[in-house]
Amino acid sequence: MNTIFLDACRGLPVERAPVWLMRQAGRYLPEYMKVREKCGFLQLCKTPELAAEVTIQPVDILGVDAAILFSDILIPVEAMGMKLDFSPAPVFEAPVRTLRGVESLRIPSLEEDMPFLPLLIRLLRRELEGRVPLIGFGGAPFTLACYMVEGKGSRDFATVKKMMYCAPEVFSALMEKLTAMLIAYLGGQIKAGAQAVQIFDTWGGILSPADYERYALPYTSRVIEGLAGKGVPLIHFVKNAGAMLDSVRKAGGDVIGLDWHTALGRARDLLGPDVAVQGNLDPAALFGPRPHIEAEVKRILGENRGRPGHIFNLGHGILPDTPPDNARFMVECVHRLTKT
Amino acid sequence: MNTIFLDACRGLPVERAPVWLMRQAGRYLPEYMKVREKCGFLQLCKTPELAAEVTIQPVDILGVDAAILFSDILIPVEAMGMKLDFSPAPVFEAPVRTLRGVESLRIPSLEEDMPFLPLLIRLLRRELEGRVPLIGFGGAPFTLACYMVEGKGSRDFATVKKMMYCAPEVFSALMEKLTAMLIAYLGGQIKAGAQAVQIFDTWGGILSPADYERYALPYTSRVIEGLAGKGVPLIHFVKNAGAMLDSVRKAGGDVIGLDWHTALGRARDLLGPDVAVQGNLDPAALFGPRPHIEAEVKRILGENRGRPGHIFNLGHGILPDTPPDNARFMVECVHRLTKT
Repeated sequence: MNTIFLDACRGLPVERAPVWLMRQAGRYLPEYMKVREKCGFLQLCKTPELAAEVTIQPVDILGVDAAILFSDILIPVEAMGMKLDFSPAPVFEAPVRTLRGVESLRIPSLEEDMPFLPLLIRLLRRELEGRVPLIGFGGAPFTLACYMVEGKGSRDFATVKKMMYCAPEVFSALMEKLTAMLIAYLGGQIKAGAQAVQIFDTWGGILSPADYERYALPYTSRVIEGLAGKGVPLIHFVKNAGAMLDSVRKAGGDVIGLDWHTALGRARDLLGPDVAVQGNLDPAALFGPRPHIEAEVKRILGENRGRPGHIFNLGHGILPDTPPDNARFMVECVHRLTKT
Repeated sequence: MNTIFLDACRGLPVERAPVWLMRQAGRYLPEYMKVREKCGFLQLCKTPELAAEVTIQPVDILGVDAAILFSDILIPVEAMGMKLDFSPAPVFEAPVRTLRGVESLRIPSLEEDMPFLPLLIRLLRRELEGRVPLIGFGGAPFTLACYMVEGKGSRDFATVKKMMYCAPEVFSALMEKLTAMLIAYLGGQIKAGAQAVQIFDTWGGILSPADYERYALPYTSRVIEGLAGKGVPLIHFVKNAGAMLDSVRKAGGDVIGLDWHTALGRARDLLGPDVAVQGNLDPAALFGPRPHIEAEVKRILGENRGRPGHIFNLGHGILPDTPPDNARFMVECVHRLTKT
């Protein structure tokens, strides 16, 4: 099996840098769109055969060094008892705003309440055997809380912040529940066969560093501790956290995901040699001509200066209109330019 | 006159920290909404008597130490020849995408093409005399280019980035024109009586540090150089630039504006004693109870450690539903806690 991704997560030297792309299974691929014609997004997540098919597509088409479960961070929140729609952005029609609302949420069992997920993981492990490792994932507690309290995406996240400041007992009850849920949820994924886990904290970066340390870090940290000793590397990605990477590091993770707003070289200097990093090409760079893409890959590799423990990735999810050929070319550049 | 704002911009010691709020004239104030009943947003910007009234409101109501022109960064872009609507977010129905499009734009004259603005500045200087200084402002070239190329706000700014990477000659022609326009536009504001100028780079932070240095910094830097020697301090604010403050500093400015994603103390350490800073309370903190607001003001002042050259402000514009009493309380806290 191609283990360079797992080796790099552990900071080991590898023959060439591993690369995968956040949202690599998605609608920029015509092959994915073909599967999506058959069913909606949530249905696709819940149909193991189809989810497995789209999970493997980028491995075949782009030549990436890891597969990531086709799923959504809000799937376990739905299983907690919140009605979820995608239109196409996620919407909870009844957001959580009260202690009673929090108390009515349950901590679901992966095997019983989301059986399609362990099924998908087992199916993928069989189908991927001998090729690349499988990454499981979940949202960070704070990011899930944002969606659950706001009910949808938000520009200012004023509702969740109001709850933090004005009803801290409701906020912390919600975060406690999410923390317990995530330990079970991600632990279940590992048990089913996920070989690494990524925590996506999409919204942690809307907080000031002081608020991040108070309202988000302690919970993420407990999730990460709760997964320690399970033998799989953990990638911790907080978007827009370039000015508080030391806090992100404090929360934990074997690998720190970097968005493109942070210079990778500087981030490595700050984080030190004991933690690996993942990133961090601007997804929009894939709209550029090939010389631009290659120059950007070179720049990022140059910033890494050959240090072990670098997984090449985008700094955020691949954009919907990305030409697949450009994504493939990027993967090829990383492989060619790092071959030892 | 209350000169503590201007003194702090110049790094001079002051008797207490000056404070103002980005978007302090705006729809969280019932007094503003009353004026807005009479006319639309753009019309309000273009009617000096009414614009002066709403500019002065926060000076009277909140007790802030500076007034900022009621206007919009896209006003001069409209004067360049692009039809602008607010619905309520700004929209250009015919975005600029080609060299011909760029060539058809003209560099407007402040006095001839936007006479309402120098009129407003002169009116405000008369009405404010003996109270607080008047800040003029404009968008950074890159931020204006984003709106002009995308046509409206964007999540990914893929269109403007495509232009940067695939049609650099179109992008640089646009940026050259914007640079020349801004030097004339901001220079005209100063000539009319603006006592400080703030450059808002709302979108500079969507770029990687490398792209910022290539595609945004050189133009902002020329605008700032073009205004040097005019005797008024210049505030340079780039949103979401906490991980590249050294680049922002390189672009110039007497004061660097900080959003709330960056710890102010760390930013000051990095920027050094020769540049002042402005910021950086999370606007959402004003939704909290008074003890929270006071604690946050204290925290930020504590991070500053009494260093001269700190203008207290929010880390971005005040949010629409902010209780005016909380904004007033915040201003009062800053004054009380920094009184020497």
